[in-house]
Amino acid sequence: MAQQGGSSTLRILVATDCHLGYLEKDEERRFDSFDTFEEICSLAEKHKVDFLLLGGDLFHENKPSNSTLVKTIEILRRYCMNDRPVKFQVISDQAAGSLRNRVGQVNYEDSNYSIGLPIFAIHGSHDGPTGVDNMSSNDILSAGNFLNYFGKTDLGCTGVGKTTVCPIFIIKGQTYVALYGLGNIRDERLNIMLNEPHAVNWMLPEIRDEIDWFNILVLHQKRKKASPSNGVSELLLPRFLDLVIWGHEHECLIDPEEVSGMGFHVTQPGSSIATSLINSEAKAKHVLLLEIKGTQYRPTKIPLQSVRPFEYVEVVLEDQVDVDPSDEATIHAYLHRIVSNLIEKVRETAASGSEPKLPLVRIKRLNCSSGGFYSGFSTINSKQFGQKYVGKVANPQDILLFTKSGKRCKNTQESPNSSGEVDTNDLNQQTIEALISETNLQSEILHLNDLNSALHDFVNNDDKTAFHSCLKQSIDEARNKLTTATEDSTNIEEQQIACSLDQNVQAPGKETILLTHALSVLESDDEPVEYSDQEEMSSSSHQAAGRKRRAASGGGGGGSAASAAGRRKTDLALFQRAPSKEDDADAAKQRRAPVAPGRYGAVIRRR
Amino acid sequence: MAQQGGSSTLRILVATDCHLGYLEKDEERRFDSFDTFEEICSLAEKHKVDFLLLGGDLFHENKPSNSTLVKTIEILRRYCMNDRPVKFQVISDQAAGSLRNRVGQVNYEDSNYSIGLPIFAIHGSHDGPTGVDNMSSNDILSAGNFLNYFGKTDLGCTGVGKTTVCPIFIIKGQTYVALYGLGNIRDERLNIMLNEPHAVNWMLPEIRDEIDWFNILVLHQKRKKASPSNGVSELLLPRFLDLVIWGHEHECLIDPEEVSGMGFHVTQPGSSIATSLINSEAKAKHVLLLEIKGTQYRPTKIPLQSVRPFEYVEVVLEDQVDVDPSDEATIHAYLHRIVSNLIEKVRETAASGSEPKLPLVRIKRLNCSSGGFYSGFSTINSKQFGQKYVGKVANPQDILLFTKSGKRCKNTQESPNSSGEVDTNDLNQQTIEALISETNLQSEILHLNDLNSALHDFVNNDDKTAFHSCLKQSIDEARNKLTTATEDSTNIEEQQIACSLDQNVQAPGKETILLTHALSVLESDDEPVEYSDQEEMSSSSHQAAGRKRRAASGGGGGGSAASAAGRRKTDLALFQRAPSKEDDADAAKQRRAPVAPGRYGAVIRRR
Repeated sequence: MAQQGGSSTLRILVATDCHLGYLEKDEERRFDSFDTFEEICSLAEKHKVDFLLLGGDLFHENKPSNSTLVKTIEILRRYCMNDRPVKFQVISDQAAGSLRNRVGQVNYEDSNYSIGLPIFAIHGSHDGPTGVDNMSSNDILSAGNFLNYFGKTDLGCTGVGKTTVCPIFIIKGQTYVALYGLGNIRDERLNIMLNEPHAVNWMLPEIRDEIDWFNILVLHQKRKKASPSNGVSELLLPRFLDLVIWGHEHECLIDPEEVSGMGFHVTQPGSSIATSLINSEAKAKHVLLLEIKGTQYRPTKIPLQSVRPFEYVEVVLEDQVDVDPSDEATIHAYLHRIVSNLIEKVRETAASGSEPKLPLVRIKRLNCSSGGFYSGFSTINSKQFGQKYVGKVANPQDILLFTKSGKRCKNTQESPNSSGEVDTNDLNQQTIEALISETNLQSEILHLNDLNSALHDFVNNDDKTAFHSCLKQSIDEARNKLTTATEDSTNIEEQQIACSLDQNVQAPGKETILLTHALSVLESDDEPVEYSDQEEMSSSSHQAAGRKRRAASGGGGGGSAASAAGRRKTDLALFQRAPSKEDDADAAKQRRAPVAPGRYGAVIRRR
Repeated sequence: MAQQGGSSTLRILVATDCHLGYLEKDEERRFDSFDTFEEICSLAEKHKVDFLLLGGDLFHENKPSNSTLVKTIEILRRYCMNDRPVKFQVISDQAAGSLRNRVGQVNYEDSNYSIGLPIFAIHGSHDGPTGVDNMSSNDILSAGNFLNYFGKTDLGCTGVGKTTVCPIFIIKGQTYVALYGLGNIRDERLNIMLNEPHAVNWMLPEIRDEIDWFNILVLHQKRKKASPSNGVSELLLPRFLDLVIWGHEHECLIDPEEVSGMGFHVTQPGSSIATSLINSEAKAKHVLLLEIKGTQYRPTKIPLQSVRPFEYVEVVLEDQVDVDPSDEATIHAYLHRIVSNLIEKVRETAASGSEPKLPLVRIKRLNCSSGGFYSGFSTINSKQFGQKYVGKVANPQDILLFTKSGKRCKNTQESPNSSGEVDTNDLNQQTIEALISETNLQSEILHLNDLNSALHDFVNNDDKTAFHSCLKQSIDEARNKLTTATEDSTNIEEQQIACSLDQNVQAPGKETILLTHALSVLESDDEPVEYSDQEEMSSSSHQAAGRKRRAASGGGGGGSAASAAGRRKTDLALFQRAPSKEDDADAAKQRRAPVAPGRYGAVIRRR
């Protein structure tokens, strides 16, 4: 694949969210993250890239176990240490400001090492700096000269903080690339910083007439277009960028999309391993081969072969003719039939030859609600159900996931949607914040701080009405805003929530699920008014939610409670570079040109 | 120092117990371990050694923090990575069995690295293998090619276990060294293994007429001559060895001593950092330069300059004329005078030029007991006392240590003794086992298992008499043994204990201190009958206790309760290679010859 390109073509393999060490204590899945990382390294070798670029969360933990560190280092040694010549150049005095090591030197320039495959990496949300001396696990690899860690900012603890983002200047022949890195910062904080005029200081390459720099930013944040309080909008990024590589989001949206009016493209490679059994993670995983020549680039997505097969389906038992709600045996039979089919499907598509990995299987069971949970069906014990599949699937303990989604009844098949789904395994380990981040939930109405304090009250103060109060208050607030909104909107769903909420107040254990559901219902109405075209929405759940709404309810779009609520906190108009709708319309014509793989896409230049 | 020695002289720098990361959160002392490790590496460079040999506990924790790993790796990169040629050879196919890395190759042979200073290291008790895949922190450094980790055994969990100790064969000119490593194994387990005929399989070099191998063993264990249940006896080691490097014990007893009848010498380099503020750690710290030529070796001890000054004194307030037991002010004044003098002493001896480190100061206050604790003195608040010395000493919070030692009254000044001392800071963090190990306590009469179960009862079952019962039972048992001993011994002390024990039973909080004291009194009678000469005792507390006893009570040596009790569990006669007393007498004449630094000592050959 694409071995052409002379000495001026810089070839980069881009991957992100490898989560090394994920489930390292799981007998079946413990090697998954390493297998795929090894595949990524071997792809880098096979495609003879100049370097490997990692977009954060290389490790699943900031303090990886000794075993994870050893396995990682062994892979790095196998693929990075060789005498293949490195054919690009980094202007070293510039690197000193951006590289996280004592010498301020890229690793392959140390004459005591033979490094044939350099790696550049930022930290993510899992492996970010913390603890004594604020060290990331990437600092260990950087100290050991295994990779070039950049994009680490020291913001201090108080105030908004300021940071200077120094690019790494990479030169290969006539190609000049300025590589900006921004390791994960708490989303809220970064949003505030990006909204303040000089809090983020982007260092620009020296402007010379003969040099036209190609500017890449790699960052690791929650991605959200119109919700500055819970995700970073690409509209807040500087316009001089040419390509943004977005880490953290696990869904593979790897084909670069243009952000209209901003003049740059965004690629979201997605994780190389599924850490949540949700729909967006069931998509095929890819890495991106990026070839840059001058100011043009060609993206080629490469599917990852080593990823454990993962089959995800959503079922509405009420829709099935052969399922009798009052007869548990029929439900069991139906669900077992589905699992067997999925296993069979995986077996058929598996490459012949090598022993295929046991698949991950997740059946999300949606119910037509008419009041309580699981509307008449007895609750099936998920662990018992899975016992039959020990040795046949990789996750027998949590094949089934129950959720409640009144709205989706009848249309489920057409709208597989990751929103509103919470992996029950994670519930006891995570904060609301993490939970929402993992599942790409959006909470324009319910604010994190409120949720967190409700959680605190619920757990520590034994306040069983904490969530109820929080939710009620937020909905009231949003409803008030709604009355001032320009378009009449669908209050029905919100009333539904309020209703079911009242019914369920007595069951505090289920409140979390309810809450999540409430969020998912709310967010399907969240579509920002600024965007008129479906293509413009690259945020996974946004996109899915948007499509679904059109398909299902066939209308009712436009202004909504959420976008109104979203504006409450941060007015986009305040940001100097926020694009206007006119920008959007103008840019729409040239959109998607560079997405097509295999051809060089022209980047709109602004100099 | 000693640059002579041609191409056949193998030069090794030996250090142990560097405890990297020790007190890494202490503002004042956090860099101590790194400073000294850096000095060790620079000494290796300065003395142009062939390699650095580390005897375990390189890290203070098995899972060092990211910061500790980064600092360590940075030091290793600075000193190990260079293009100085390595002038010795390791027979690689043999190394595969002993080195802990995938390739079974010494690190400097990897052509992708320029390594000028190889390091060989075993693990210790702090950084031993544990967790997922049973990994030591040394495995990380080994995977990263920073050192050659050897001496890791996989014993499995059940049964006694068997292990094969493969040496690393090192050749330089006409010098042939077989380097055996035995990383820390639980002392009890290793004792059982060493007593079983074939549990430890020592691989021998191929015997060829023209080659005479010099056999070195480096191990990391508690060291004890006559108490197989609580420390490993050198008498259990195989006789083919020429030199044993003993890690774990922090006291510097670095001059090699011959073990009579065994034909090998033992050097105990001691830790490079004080982790307990006890007398034996206040001694000057050293590393050992070992030059081996053929079958002769020359040891040269090199003092470490970067070690934080540590002054330790013991005082008996009752002996001081200007101290009035009823007037706390006089006690304070007296103690403050001592601290000031110690600080002044450190300041005077400090090298001019560089800013000296704040010293560690420990005053151990012994009391003449006449019943209760601290006999009439009010207890001084140690933390309050130290407030005056913030910025003047490195440990203002724990300068004072109170203990009770009835027996030592009047003779304290002549017998500074580390036994019977417990750092009160550690009490809440450690098991009895760790406590005893750290302070070099000996417990021939009180067995660890009994103590541990007593501790368990005391804490978990709220059994306030647990220690009392345990102690009483053990003393009764020992007393019974005593009546069968050949010589009449000093039962007075034991009666003292039993007496004070009865008086203090009502104060459970003080039982630990009492216990420790009881141990220290008991152990001064512990001297094993097998040894008739003071020089033969290399275990620190043994030696100190032995000297003290002679100086103080002026007699009463010989057979004792402890050696009798020691024999209870493991009969030395069962071990095939246990030396007889005749061996001892024969070997005594040639003793101490190789200890003198600067001259080549002849090793007694047995082939």
